[in-house]
Amino acid sequence: MLYQHGTLGTLMAGMLEGTATINSILEHGDLGIGTLSGSDGEVIILDGTAYHANEYNEFRTLTGTELTPFATVTPFKPDIQFTTHIITDDETLLDEVLAKVGSKNIFNAVKITGTFEIMHVRMMPQQQPPYTRLIESAKVQPEFTKEQITGTIVGFYSPQLFHGIAASGFHLHFINDDKTFGGHVLNFELNKGTIEVSKIETLEQHFPVNNEAFLTTDIDYANIDEDIRETE
Amino acid sequence: MLYQHGTLGTLMAGMLEGTATINSILEHGDLGIGTLSGSDGEVIILDGTAYHANEYNEFRTLTGTELTPFATVTPFKPDIQFTTHIITDDETLLDEVLAKVGSKNIFNAVKITGTFEIMHVRMMPQQQPPYTRLIESAKVQPEFTKEQITGTIVGFYSPQLFHGIAASGFHLHFINDDKTFGGHVLNFELNKGTIEVSKIETLEQHFPVNNEAFLTTDIDYANIDEDIRETE
Ligand SMILES: [Zn+2]
Ligand SMILES: [Zn+2]
Repeated sequence: MLYQHGTLGTLMAGMLEGTATINSILEHGDLGIGTLSGSDGEVIILDGTAYHANEYNEFRTLTGTELTPFATVTPFKPDIQFTTHIITDDETLLDEVLAKVGSKNIFNAVKITGTFEIMHVRMMPQQQPPYTRLIESAKVQPEFTKEQITGTIVGFYSPQLFHGIAASGFHLHFINDDKTFGGHVLNFELNKGTIEVSKIETLEQHFPVNNEAFLTTDIDYANIDEDIRETE
Repeated sequence: MLYQHGTLGTLMAGMLEGTATINSILEHGDLGIGTLSGSDGEVIILDGTAYHANEYNEFRTLTGTELTPFATVTPFKPDIQFTTHIITDDETLLDEVLAKVGSKNIFNAVKITGTFEIMHVRMMPQQQPPYTRLIESAKVQPEFTKEQITGTIVGFYSPQLFHGIAASGFHLHFINDDKTFGGHVLNFELNKGTIEVSKIETLEQHFPVNNEAFLTTDIDYANIDEDIRETE
């Protein structure tokens, strides 16, 4: 089971107000990704703890009371596990994940633990109200590259049909072992590591039914597909 | 909670093999809609019983062992109830439903019980393998119109962002009181009746993870948006 609060499309359309607490997200899983109110930075959920990397490259453990407009989480139980000992780029490795899952038509959850030759991430800069479309923030997003860093990638693969609900393809966040650095993964090279994958049978999509702005706004989803591709 | 097995997009793409029993669908709710293997006709789930209307205008109660490639169901508990005593066309009535829900951005489930001046339905003709895209069946679908018929409409409203997962807007099936006639609603005029609506907080989207064809096919979702609009 994969639990998602909010949708990426709604976030892209500029509905950035947090509508669920991080604690309420953690009730549905121990591995995941998300962002905070205002699309503030990148949330990484690993082993049941939620961490946050902001645009200033600051890293902290969340208390749980923070609000998120968009988060995805799963009670992670790997169905597939394999290791690699040669330097592998993200495209090659993720193709291997899909090959082992045997399907591009179901969601899967991934956890990649190891030493990375290169880890290239971004952190989404926080918007202040009144919020605009997320593509505006994405244009000025800070990026950071680390070399020879040990840590864990967590995230999800979403099938093509779900582009808009989530980002189709892989959406991955990174956290280092020291819990001092992380972000939204742009690309990487894994030196050696362990890859664990969980096949997802059910997507539990939760809507912020008590948020007046979400309920009543005439949300403009025009260009959402392209916006997501450009931003993610 | 709204439970859906399969997606409309996958069905439209021609993946018409049944992948869940009607009994397994009924475990998740007592009101809903669907179709059978080969996109055979229209399934109507009312008060926990599943019925079937086929292309020959035959109507029967399902045994529960039949297979469905696509079905949506909810344990129906109305949040909103209202009555109408003047003849109302479908567009006016469904606009009123959305106004009372107060949102076009969440799913809702509807149940409309009463006397219909006009009930215009279609039943999707069954395909035999090898299956083709659903738009091919839709081109030859039989339609039937009844006047002065009492019965119940059941179905769902899906937000725009979920077009492809379901049909955005209302997707409604009809069953008459005598359990002798039903189908996929094209349009209607309600004479007098009761409208009940349930706001949906969570969509539970289930995938046929044990179906080899679904897992391994490179599903062609091109033109799916338009195909759905034309078919539904
Ligand atoms: Zn991200
Ligand atoms: Zn239908």
